[in-house]
Amino acid sequence: MEIKKPALRDRIHEIIFETETPAGKAFDVLLLLFIVASVVVVLLESMEIYRLRFGSYLTALEWFFTLAFTLEYLLRIYSVYKPGKYIFSFFGIIDLLAILPTYIGLLIVGSHYLVVIRALRLLRIFRVFKLVNFLRQGQIIIESLRRSVPKITVFFFFILIVVTIIGSIMHVLEGGFNAGFSSIPKSIYWAIVTLTTVGYGDITPQSEIGRFLSAFVMVLGYSIIAVPTGIIASDLVRMPSGKEEVSNQSCRYCSSEGHDPDAIFCKYCGERLNP
Amino acid sequence: MEIKKPALRDRIHEIIFETETPAGKAFDVLLLLFIVASVVVVLLESMEIYRLRFGSYLTALEWFFTLAFTLEYLLRIYSVYKPGKYIFSFFGIIDLLAILPTYIGLLIVGSHYLVVIRALRLLRIFRVFKLVNFLRQGQIIIESLRRSVPKITVFFFFILIVVTIIGSIMHVLEGGFNAGFSSIPKSIYWAIVTLTTVGYGDITPQSEIGRFLSAFVMVLGYSIIAVPTGIIASDLVRMPSGKEEVSNQSCRYCSSEGHDPDAIFCKYCGERLNP
Amino acid sequence: MEIKKPALRDRIHEIIFETETPAGKAFDVLLLLFIVASVVVVLLESMEIYRLRFGSYLTALEWFFTLAFTLEYLLRIYSVYKPGKYIFSFFGIIDLLAILPTYIGLLIVGSHYLVVIRALRLLRIFRVFKLVNFLRQGQIIIESLRRSVPKITVFFFFILIVVTIIGSIMHVLEGGFNAGFSSIPKSIYWAIVTLTTVGYGDITPQSEIGRFLSAFVMVLGYSIIAVPTGIIASDLVRMPSGKEEVSNQSCRYCSSEGHDPDAIFCKYCGERLNP
Amino acid sequence: MEIKKPALRDRIHEIIFETETPAGKAFDVLLLLFIVASVVVVLLESMEIYRLRFGSYLTALEWFFTLAFTLEYLLRIYSVYKPGKYIFSFFGIIDLLAILPTYIGLLIVGSHYLVVIRALRLLRIFRVFKLVNFLRQGQIIIESLRRSVPKITVFFFFILIVVTIIGSIMHVLEGGFNAGFSSIPKSIYWAIVTLTTVGYGDITPQSEIGRFLSAFVMVLGYSIIAVPTGIIASDLVRMPSGKEEVSNQSCRYCSSEGHDPDAIFCKYCGERLNP
Repeated sequence: MEIKKPALRDRIHEIIFETETPAGKAFDVLLLLFIVASVVVVLLESMEIYRLRFGSYLTALEWFFTLAFTLEYLLRIYSVYKPGKYIFSFFGIIDLLAILPTYIGLLIVGSHYLVVIRALRLLRIFRVFKLVNFLRQGQIIIESLRRSVPKITVFFFFILIVVTIIGSIMHVLEGGFNAGFSSIPKSIYWAIVTLTTVGYGDITPQSEIGRFLSAFVMVLGYSIIAVPTGIIASDLVRMPSGKEEVSNQSCRYCSSEGHDPDAIFCKYCGERLNP
Repeated sequence: MEIKKPALRDRIHEIIFETETPAGKAFDVLLLLFIVASVVVVLLESMEIYRLRFGSYLTALEWFFTLAFTLEYLLRIYSVYKPGKYIFSFFGIIDLLAILPTYIGLLIVGSHYLVVIRALRLLRIFRVFKLVNFLRQGQIIIESLRRSVPKITVFFFFILIVVTIIGSIMHVLEGGFNAGFSSIPKSIYWAIVTLTTVGYGDITPQSEIGRFLSAFVMVLGYSIIAVPTGIIASDLVRMPSGKEEVSNQSCRYCSSEGHDPDAIFCKYCGERLNP
Repeated sequence: MEIKKPALRDRIHEIIFETETPAGKAFDVLLLLFIVASVVVVLLESMEIYRLRFGSYLTALEWFFTLAFTLEYLLRIYSVYKPGKYIFSFFGIIDLLAILPTYIGLLIVGSHYLVVIRALRLLRIFRVFKLVNFLRQGQIIIESLRRSVPKITVFFFFILIVVTIIGSIMHVLEGGFNAGFSSIPKSIYWAIVTLTTVGYGDITPQSEIGRFLSAFVMVLGYSIIAVPTGIIASDLVRMPSGKEEVSNQSCRYCSSEGHDPDAIFCKYCGERLNP
Repeated sequence: MEIKKPALRDRIHEIIFETETPAGKAFDVLLLLFIVASVVVVLLESMEIYRLRFGSYLTALEWFFTLAFTLEYLLRIYSVYKPGKYIFSFFGIIDLLAILPTYIGLLIVGSHYLVVIRALRLLRIFRVFKLVNFLRQGQIIIESLRRSVPKITVFFFFILIVVTIIGSIMHVLEGGFNAGFSSIPKSIYWAIVTLTTVGYGDITPQSEIGRFLSAFVMVLGYSIIAVPTGIIASDLVRMPSGKEEVSNQSCRYCSSEGHDPDAIFCKYCGERLNP
């Protein structure tokens, strides 16, 4: 028994955390389907015509997915050597959040707000990205974005300051007769709508001078979009083209990922990786 | 007769499939005109004022183009050595779809939906792109897009997850009093309209907090557009600048294209190309 | 007299066509002011409140500018050696179009449409760009755009085909109950509004399936904008960074420009350039 | 006393102008908080519900911040060796503008317009950017933008001319029956709204030909956005990747910044920098 049990844990860990074995792949595909299906249930429940007609079925499905995810969560905790590390990792918290709302819904009546937490389940899809070679590609994008962070932050502060000043000007110019500019925060909202070229049209300038300033904001927004694009493009050009492979192995001890294909020991905790 | 017939088939193949001879060029120009004209007929037929006034003329024109395309289709089948390969190729199916709707319209009354299939005729224009040197340019773009697919896919999943979560949040925030956010799918639609900076304005936030979140979505959408642009730009920079020419020859046996200018045999089936 | 006259012509040519002498610079600045002022008159005339109040002043100003431009036009013809070449050059035609509408307005009553031709005067501003070092910069952009033309053309055809097919689908889906999609051309207009992320909101989908397809079009439009941007960016990266200077000299014989700073003879007609 | 006083001035200068000492850092963080808080007060004051309920508190806060900024301004003047240079520097003027409106509000009744000047306080945030390593990043962006200025200017002139001509055409086409195009300036406003893909939808074409031209403007706007983006991206690619550090030291004599980390003397006025 003492010998068999670790073998079972190893097997479970292999299926749930790794993706290179057939069983691991099958598990990931199933998990992907369950995540998508459970989010579809959340969407349908929010639509009155489906809630009224199929309400009980949707509740049943919701419980089915919740129990399945609960089982998976418990197996994950069981199969890693250091459960604490998993539980408080990013994905550990997301995994917990995926099951909590349904249980809380039992205790609290009218817990309508939990729908947001249930939608967070979608983040679990990133887990399954290991399945294909997306992980490395995502890392290139994220690495490039990480490098661009200081420049992009400067850019955001610039935007923030520009929309505040332009919002104040428009409030002074049109606030007197145009309800859309009756307060500075509302005018700032308009400035953002305009600068980002979204252009809802729910607030529009009505005076000549207001239209002139709007046109200026539009052309500004239309032009400065080039700045973050140029920053990210030039950072991506400087990146290596990302041919290297990354192993899909997951460390049993610290649940870390991103090991090199020829790695034998975990680079974060030094434990031996699954052979 | 035995000798003459293959010569006729060769001649037809040359005219219909190749573009370097004067006859082939003339055929392609004519085909381009027919495609565009037949689509214009489809457009005019959908406009009530023209349908009421010129309905019979438009129907006659539609039959004229259908018969012309039918003749062309039969000649294509006749002139290639392996008709099966042509029929089930991408362009073979498009060529068939270009003529089917009119015949089906005879059998089924009120086949209004066929208008979509008739519009697919436009895809045949890509055939004629061989005429000019666009083929190679299109290949550079497609090759660059193909390389970007994994990164762009990660980006799409990211967008999808973001709009779902933001849609859920907005549904919770404004769903109670704003009809535009009465269900999560509707809120996701709004999130996409906002994130992509389209901004119809048919659904707009009405609360302070809703406007604040909207502003966040706008700035996010305005900024992350830089990511796919940067990806494609950096992939294009790494591509060779595409000076090489591609022959416009089309293989008589397997209907394949994209042969090198000095190629004597088809690189896909090994048969001798037209000299 | 025989000797003096050519000297006068040379002097006029120098002032009007060249920009490196003080007189030439002064002339260009004056011309720039006149062009902008005359277009402002056109704008003011189109606004009812100004037309009613200052109508006669605006007409007088319009005549003043027309006469000034006429004088300039005649001097240009007089001072070049081959007037025919100037008259039928791009700028020659623009210069003529700048003065024609006012004279035609005398002959034809209600020639409201001429306002467009009068607005074309703005194109004359490009003449004055010689003044500063913008010419070379513009040439880099134009050269880069010229290189991108085949790729961009493929892109445009792709867009055109996509909006036609999507317009047809939306016409079939929503044409029955949504006036905005009552004909395919109208639906194509909607598809363009959506794909380009303009999003007027004058036509919006009303069914679930229509909104789903719209969302797809938005995300498509939001993503493929990356393609032309990437193309132009990568072409610009490959361009030399454009430090070389271009002479502002203009050939007296063929009115051509863009000569190298050390050029002694016109590279287009072989005549000696102004020293 | 004669010896002590300069020491105090040195100490004040160190706290206010430099950021590498703990006291300097603390001061900058405090200043950042004060700036943001004072702008929040401006925003709240513009919202009727808050002005009516908390008006007196907001006025009190406004005075508190004004007095704090006044004290800071006086200390800045006191601690630099050449106050004149500071007072007429960009930040010197911004610092003055941050405190003036409140005092002017005492003298002039209904000085509603001063809200714009109060919002300019936000520009002071750029001061505090010294705190982190943003300065260098901002300099890279600004340097890249500076290099792109001639090309971007050509681009802006092009846009300006395009929207004027298209506005004139639309005024002629739809001005007769569509109030949105009743004057050319209004039509130009519409052209800018459309070309920049903002698309408010407050002015939309109503005729077939008007919609066709609009579609053209949209596709044009959607495409030429690629030009400034490509320009800035290619300029950024050519820039060094910006690893070099910049000292946060500020010269006591001329208030200049941007000195190299190993600089001992100010590169602008030659005075010894703070050790």
